[in-house]
Order: sequence, then C-alpha cells, then structure tokens
Amino acid sequence: MSVKKIVVLPGDHIGPEIVSSAVEVLKTVEKKCSDLKFEFEEHKIGGASIDAYGTPLTDETIKACLEADGIILGAVGGPEWTNPNCRPEQGLLKLRKSLGVWANLRPCTFPSKSLLKYSPLKSEIAEGVDFCVVRELTGGCYFGERTEDNGSGHAMDTWPYSVEEVTRIARLAAWLAQTYNPPAPVTLLDKANVLATSRLWRKTVAKVFKEEFPHLTLKNQLIDSAAMLMVKSPRTLNGVVLTDNLFGDIISDESSVIPGSLGLLPSASLSGIYGQTENLNCLVEPIHGSAPDIAGQGIVNPVGTILSGALLLRYALNAHKEAAAIEAAVEKVLDDTSIGGRGLYTRDLGGDAKTVGITKAVVEELEKIL
Amino acid sequence: MSVKKIVVLPGDHIGPEIVSSAVEVLKTVEKKCSDLKFEFEEHKIGGASIDAYGTPLTDETIKACLEADGIILGAVGGPEWTNPNCRPEQGLLKLRKSLGVWANLRPCTFPSKSLLKYSPLKSEIAEGVDFCVVRELTGGCYFGERTEDNGSGHAMDTWPYSVEEVTRIARLAAWLAQTYNPPAPVTLLDKANVLATSRLWRKTVAKVFKEEFPHLTLKNQLIDSAAMLMVKSPRTLNGVVLTDNLFGDIISDESSVIPGSLGLLPSASLSGIYGQTENLNCLVEPIHGSAPDIAGQGIVNPVGTILSGALLLRYALNAHKEAAAIEAAVEKVLDDTSIGGRGLYTRDLGGDAKTVGITKAVVEELEKIL
Ligand SMILES: CC(C)[C@H](C(=O)O)[C@@H](O)C(=O)O
Ligand SMILES: CC(C)[C@H](C(=O)O)[C@@H](O)C(=O)O
Repeated sequence: MSVKKIVVLPGDHIGPEIVSSAVEVLKTVEKKCSDLKFEFEEHKIGGASIDAYGTPLTDETIKACLEADGIILGAVGGPEWTNPNCRPEQGLLKLRKSLGVWANLRPCTFPSKSLLKYSPLKSEIAEGVDFCVVRELTGGCYFGERTEDNGSGHAMDTWPYSVEEVTRIARLAAWLAQTYNPPAPVTLLDKANVLATSRLWRKTVAKVFKEEFPHLTLKNQLIDSAAMLMVKSPRTLNGVVLTDNLFGDIISDESSVIPGSLGLLPSASLSGIYGQTENLNCLVEPIHGSAPDIAGQGIVNPVGTILSGALLLRYALNAHKEAAAIEAAVEKVLDDTSIGGRGLYTRDLGGDAKTVGITKAVVEELEKIL
Repeated sequence: MSVKKIVVLPGDHIGPEIVSSAVEVLKTVEKKCSDLKFEFEEHKIGGASIDAYGTPLTDETIKACLEADGIILGAVGGPEWTNPNCRPEQGLLKLRKSLGVWANLRPCTFPSKSLLKYSPLKSEIAEGVDFCVVRELTGGCYFGERTEDNGSGHAMDTWPYSVEEVTRIARLAAWLAQTYNPPAPVTLLDKANVLATSRLWRKTVAKVFKEEFPHLTLKNQLIDSAAMLMVKSPRTLNGVVLTDNLFGDIISDESSVIPGSLGLLPSASLSGIYGQTENLNCLVEPIHGSAPDIAGQGIVNPVGTILSGALLLRYALNAHKEAAAIEAAVEKVLDDTSIGGRGLYTRDLGGDAKTVGITKAVVEELEKIL
C-alpha cells in the first residue's frame, strides 16, 4: 500500500474552513479503508501567498503540486489584493498551466432531491438534471497571442486550437461517458456556423467518436441554443457536455446555479485519464469563490469542497467506492429530516447549520456506509 | 408628410404568416395616424431566394433595403436547403453587413404579466425582468480573419475590436438608457480578466460614460457571472446590457427563454441612432426561427413579429406613441381573460388561438387605443 500525497491549498478567506472539512472527510475514508493511506501537505496560494512571499504562487508550491497524487484547493481572491499585476487569481491560472490540467470537469446535479425547491428553475424543469461539463482548460482564446490597445485604438485576441488538443479531450469525454451505465450521450457545444476553431472541434470530435467510440452517442449543439436549453429544458443536455475553454467557462457557470446553491458543487481539473496517463495531475476545488463576507464565521457550506474530495478519490486515485460513499453520505445529511423536518442546511440554503456541524454529520454517515 | 418605405422580407416557412400580421398591424397604425404613411415592398430572402434566384440574397434586395426607411424580416432557413455553400442564413449575415447594422437590440421583458407562469424560472425570480441586450453585430470574432484547418491540424479565429467600434455602441447604449424614466443603468458584460479586447471594451466604455454621460450608472460584470445571474437573479441586469458580438449572441439567447416563449420577443438591428445618423438602417425581426414543423397551419405566434413592428416605429421612424400603442394592444390581448378565463394564446403557450385571431384582436385593441 503506497501512501498518497495530497497537497492542500487553503487559499484565502473561507478557503481554510472548507478545505479542513474535506481533509476531515478524507481522513475518515483513510480510517475505514485499509488500502488507502494519505499524507497531507499544506501550501499557500493566492492572496495568502502574496502576503507571505509577494507572489500568488511560489515555485516551491508548484513543485509540491507536481509531485502530489492530488491537490485540494479552497478558494483564492479578495478585495484586499488590489495590485493588478499581482492578483490572487493569477496564481490559480498559473497553477493550472503548470500542472497541464487541460480538462475541467464540472458535474451539475442535485446532491440531494430535497434541494429541488432551492433551484431558480421550476421544479419540473430542474428535476433530474444530471450532466457533467467537460471544459478544455489550457487552450483557446485564454492562451492565444494578444494585442493590447496601447494607444493604437485596436486590440485583438486570437483563438487557436489544434487537432491534438481537441482529440485528447474528446477521448476524455468519451471515457467519462463510458463510466455511466448505460453510457451517457456526449453533446459538443460550439459555434461551428461562425468559427473556424469550432469547425475543427466538430470535425475532430466526430472523427474520434466514429473511429474509437462508435457505440457512443454524439450530439451537436450551438453554444447559443445550448445557453437557451440550459434554462428551458436542461435535461436535454444530460450526460457529458464537451466544450471549449471560453464556452465552458460561460456554460458551466450558467448551469451551476441550477442546483440552488453554488456552495454545493465540486470540480476537478485533470491532465489526463487515470491508468492511461503517466504522472496524472488532478486539482479539485469547489466552484464558488472565497466569500470574504462570511469568512471566519464558521457558516460556509462545505459540501462543494467535500464533494471535490470525492472527485479526487475517483479521478486521481481510482477509488470509486469511496467516492460514491462520500456522495451518499452528503446526500443523507442534506436529506436528513430528523432535524426540524428538513435536511441539514447552511445559510446559503436558508438554514442555520454550521460548517463543522455539516462536516461532522457527513463523517458520521460515512463511517456507517464504509 | 413623407411616405415611409418599408421593405418586407417574409423569408421561409412561417415567415410569410408572421410578417403579414406585422404589416396588418402597421396598416392599422397608418389608418389611425394622419402623419404616418407607409409603402410596403416585398422581397425574397433565404431559402425562398435560393429557390427563385440561386442565392440567399440578391443585389436587388440589398438595394431595396438600403433605400428603405425600415425592413421587417420574418425568418430564414429550413432543412431543405442543404448546400453548405449556399445557406439561407448566409443571406441574413450578408444583409446585416450590407446594411451596416452594428447594434442589435433585444428587449427581454414580459409582454404581459399573465405570462409569468410560462417562464422556466420561478415566478418570484422572473417577475419584473426588464432589460434590453445591446449586442455589437458587425465586429469581433464573427468578422475577424480565420485560418481553417485544411490538413495542418491547426485552426485559428481572431477577435479584433477597435475603440471606434466600441465608442459608437457605448453611445447607443447610453442613448437607450436615457430613453428610460428614470435613466436605466447600463451593465457592460466582458471577460476583461482574460481578453485584451474585453479590456479595450471596458476602458473605452468607461471613458465614453465618464466624459459624455456622467449622470448614467455604468456597471461591469464578467460574462461568466452574468450567465449565472441571468438564471439566479435576472433583475440584477435590469436596464441596458451592453456587450460584444459573441457574448451578446449567447446571453441574449439565454435570456430569451425567460418570458416563456421565444414566439413573444422582437429584435431590432440598427446602423445608428435616429436623428443622429444619416441614412439610418433598421432591420427588425422576431428572435425565433422559421419553424418548418408548424408552417402553413396558421398557428404560429405573431407577437414577436408584431412587437418587432413596434421597434421599427420607435427606432427607425421615431414614432414612440404608436410603438407604445402596439405594445399596449398586445398586452391587452395576452391578458384578455374573457376567453376561457385567460389570455389569447397560441400553441407555444399551450393555447389554441390562431395567428389571424391574435392579429385581429391586436388590431381591434389598437384601434381603440390610437
Ligand atoms: C478567474 C477566471 C480567469 C477563471 C476562468 O475564466 O477560467 C474562472 O472564471 C473559472 O472559471 O475558474
Ligand atoms: C445564424 C447565426 C449566425 C446568428 C448569429 O450567431 O448571429 C444567430 O444565432 C443570431 O443570433 O442571429
């Protein structure tokens, strides 16, 4: 049994509170599973790193992350770091690039049925939403050459993509689709009626599916109609939603509000597929921000970060049973009607449960399940 | 009293049915208002033009449109035009470019309160939504240089913007904000934490507002959080929503489903501002497509096209009173509870009213109002 090294990057504001919940839950997994052993190592990132070292990401932190089996990030940023050339977010973008995590997975589903009433969508529309956005994370217009307007009156961004970049993420989306039973359909979002890169995406993804995954269903959807469907009939997109860096940024944020609170959702960024990629890097984080307004009060919802821990087990360590156990424990806690007739909710869901209360409840459930 | 020339472009499938509703409503305005006189001239576009002339847009149609005071388009497209090099949509894109209509206005509001229950959003969230998306329409990555992947394995789009392009649309957004009483806030959507063109937009728009419209409120929102807010709390965006061509394409489609049916919403594309721009071009159209599945049955919702006629009066002819009268007549008809206890609805809203029935009712109401 090898020891798995997990780098913990609390980050700023509520960051430390939520990562400690996830670590506690992972320690419970360790306690109950004789074949999993973790070693946690904490490092600074974002504003915390700026305050300590004058930079949002040190080489030492990068090195530790590159050597780790998985990385858990809390959140970065806050109004107090005002120097535009030294922003907490830059640490995160640099970390993604250094780790080469080119695929960002953002599952969008209700961690518990009882949450349906918190969706901004009508229940009959939100019910049964269950997809995972696979966003390309290290290419496209995020990393193309740019011309700033330095007095010329003109600016330009470029938006490059290669067949290679698209092929690898198409394979990852197909692999993910195959982990569903039955295999999930994959919907590619693009703007192929306008953009050359979208036509490259469409052609390349079609080829990968036809040649390597002929049994899987591949659908195409223009990004504008997808943005519409996401509100009108989001179940249409159930399965795997594959898309480019910018479109993925927009559509995953749009979809993230469907389950009622940003505090609930996890994400994982990967440099490849477990068992197929050497030195796989995996960075997990909740999708919400650092919430300076509620930091230090012990009231932040730890669920997104706890579920991020589950994604780390699943995608970085291949520990599927344990990942599913965490998800089941979370569901149990959110559904728990023994307290006041409804689940255990933090303030973002109108409840008054505390971060530690939720965490303790998840740990207890998990001990029963494992 | 000068005669106003209105070019009517029915287009394909349901196109002829809906434009004839709008024309009938405009003829009612003409009948009741001694100072408005219209001359309607019909031309083909899209598939209808491909069938007749082998091209989706003839020079003759372009010429007629350039000479017109306003243009009403139905819808273009359909599954029968399969030649990728001769698509109906190309006629529309070419028309926009030929007319130089660089601003696309898409109001998003409930034409009638009774429609609230048809929104996919919960009523308390959708209620009071009232904004107008101002999308740049002839620049950005829609019209940048492109490199297709022709075997090299690489493709690229470019995304250029100039201070000039952004300045003129910032002024239009500010002008629009001032037509509200009190003046509406303007929210600029961009991705300034990543894109150079977004930074040009942010800087340029801020300058225009500071120097020329210091009394107006300008807010900034990243496009990803805007996509989220549009579902979670769309009223936050009330007022004028100003954005780039691609972001506008996505966010206006996302927002268009809030009022319950795509059949309800109008749009106007402008080459400038009435009274400030010479040879102002104005193309209005409903936001929905050509709906081949229901064409010829007389059941299509004409409201989006009728309201597009109102936008034509307002933005191309400065006929504000008459535009407002059309909107009031539509609201009255949709709210009419004399028939079966609810408004007069077409099938898209679960009713069984016909296109001509709605049109007739609007005409009758309008005659009372004007
Ligand atoms: C902070 C920002 C650059 C980042 C992005 O756009 O990738 C964020 O929005 C995200 O989605 O993680
Ligand atoms: C048909 C397509 C090119 C067009 C666009 O993206 O502009 C359409 O989606 C629209 O919004 O009018």
